[in-house]
Amino acid sequence: MLRHKKLKDRGKSVNRSKDLLTVRWENNQVIMIDQTKLPAKLVYVKYRKYEDVARAIERLVVRGAPAIGVAAAFGMSLAAISSKAKNKNSLLKDLKIAYERLRSTRPTAVNLVWALDQIMKVASSKNDLEEMKKSIVLSSLNMATEDISTNKKLGQNGAEMIHNHDVILTHCNAGSLATVAYGTALGVLRAASDMGKNIRVVATETRPVMQGSRLTAFELDHYGIDFSLIPDTAVGHIMSSGLIKRVIVGADRVLKTGHVYNKIGTYQVAALAKRHDIPFYVAAPSSTFDLTSKVSDVIIEERNKNELMKMGNKLLAPRGIKVFNPAFDVTPPELITGIITEKGIIKPPYEDSISKIF
Amino acid sequence: MLRHKKLKDRGKSVNRSKDLLTVRWENNQVIMIDQTKLPAKLVYVKYRKYEDVARAIERLVVRGAPAIGVAAAFGMSLAAISSKAKNKNSLLKDLKIAYERLRSTRPTAVNLVWALDQIMKVASSKNDLEEMKKSIVLSSLNMATEDISTNKKLGQNGAEMIHNHDVILTHCNAGSLATVAYGTALGVLRAASDMGKNIRVVATETRPVMQGSRLTAFELDHYGIDFSLIPDTAVGHIMSSGLIKRVIVGADRVLKTGHVYNKIGTYQVAALAKRHDIPFYVAAPSSTFDLTSKVSDVIIEERNKNELMKMGNKLLAPRGIKVFNPAFDVTPPELITGIITEKGIIKPPYEDSISKIF
Repeated sequence: MLRHKKLKDRGKSVNRSKDLLTVRWENNQVIMIDQTKLPAKLVYVKYRKYEDVARAIERLVVRGAPAIGVAAAFGMSLAAISSKAKNKNSLLKDLKIAYERLRSTRPTAVNLVWALDQIMKVASSKNDLEEMKKSIVLSSLNMATEDISTNKKLGQNGAEMIHNHDVILTHCNAGSLATVAYGTALGVLRAASDMGKNIRVVATETRPVMQGSRLTAFELDHYGIDFSLIPDTAVGHIMSSGLIKRVIVGADRVLKTGHVYNKIGTYQVAALAKRHDIPFYVAAPSSTFDLTSKVSDVIIEERNKNELMKMGNKLLAPRGIKVFNPAFDVTPPELITGIITEKGIIKPPYEDSISKIF
Repeated sequence: MLRHKKLKDRGKSVNRSKDLLTVRWENNQVIMIDQTKLPAKLVYVKYRKYEDVARAIERLVVRGAPAIGVAAAFGMSLAAISSKAKNKNSLLKDLKIAYERLRSTRPTAVNLVWALDQIMKVASSKNDLEEMKKSIVLSSLNMATEDISTNKKLGQNGAEMIHNHDVILTHCNAGSLATVAYGTALGVLRAASDMGKNIRVVATETRPVMQGSRLTAFELDHYGIDFSLIPDTAVGHIMSSGLIKRVIVGADRVLKTGHVYNKIGTYQVAALAKRHDIPFYVAAPSSTFDLTSKVSDVIIEERNKNELMKMGNKLLAPRGIKVFNPAFDVTPPELITGIITEKGIIKPPYEDSISKIF
């Protein structure tokens, strides 16, 4: 399935079978793919300050719930290393400032808070300053490694339910670029493809930030998986033609009731899949589950209206108009066929099966 | 409801209560608003050759089923005037060449063929060369005038079913810019607003050509009607919030079974409206009805993949990928609450009520 074409990568050639490394730690720096530059250029950016990591998360240099979590943990590592604190309490104070700044970047993805909380717990459990810093860095590195192995397990679990010759629709980007390296929804498709299953993918553009055309298309092209790009307006039409056999998407947060928060447009893709009797799957590692919140507790981030007003140098709408630009929506459990995790595929009724698996 | 702000129009000021004149005939020329330049600039273009009109229809300088019909009729007038034919048969031959060229521009809108056929009938019914030419021009001018009065009647009929304080969702552009001057779906909203009803509109962007953000937003702003723009991905989400009370869209073709061909995305808006128990109306003058074709007969135009690949100077997707870019979809009658025409509102069962009204 994999083609081994060359791709320009800052002058070096890239092996298409190799994972895209979205976010990593090297020489006390965070190195990320700048996703705002894709698909035109594959550029890596380096950060030494946690404030720059926070800004990068806000600007969508890095996005995707699992990738944001690890990026934020690396941000905490930068904060720890650069702290001039002379005792545990003042280091914890510095870490708390970084925690608040990083947590404020994106309100909906649960992995962000999960990762930040993990780091604070590790910090609090040590007493020696150097030991605190070391264990924070080690812990963020472990998170990155675990993200990869978790996604590979998740991919294996999900690939079992992909049939040979399936045409699978996906929305937004839940691939390498949404995680540290392997991907969740796209990880399932990569695993199925690596098992030798012959699959085709239909990717939606995913307005307004175009994660489908910019990122998913870039990844599927990179990994040599056969796909077509469609506008978000063609989802119903292509489903009504009978072409689509399965839908698989990622998640930014899964509640214990089985409600799934994901990129705006996911809910309508799920509702349309239901109408056409197409199985709808969510791929979500357990770090995406929020077992305490109710639907009424979750804030759906609204993003800047400029995402709808302009594209490059092109004005898309008259200046000064009102815009509604929610980043996420919620898909109710009755529209979801199964939730694929690294611990197995969770099936309805979700209250029961989620509480059983955790 | 109407604000009377000034708008830059090539140096002159524009009265916001005045109709936007999408396509008109003046001094043996066709004058159109160049809709590819909106919303950045309101620019008028003039054509003296039918070939240029055909190219303008293909390039979406003019679009919207009723506007295309009248533009094509004006194109036939240009062909008649510029013909060097010395007798009826050779003029008819010249007209047939123009007919074929103009008909080839957009395969789905039925008004185009309807208008072209009308002109050919008029031409055939005369014998004197000058009389043929005069009656073609007169007939195309009548079509333009009739389009306005038809849409005004349609607007009045539709406005009756709009309630005070309704929030109405519309997809694509079925306004002044889709007709000669008044609009179909947006004509209904203008009429309701002129009756003093307090309404709010939610307009979808309508990828890939953005007729919603570029044209509908421009018009609603021009006519001073309160509205918000949303991405196509937020339709399901905003409906699930309970905000939307009604949906109204235009049509490119209505079959006698009540199947409606309209801009890609219409079908899924209708399916989502059904799921949320929101009445879904189609506004379509009788020239949009095709009483002879079946669903299997209608060709859905596929447009160039570049519409998804680029926006202004910005590359949206990796070069060389596969794209599926259908311009229209079909909404089945069971999703449609009513079809608003200049002859009244048609209700299900459509086979019966459509055959009764024609």
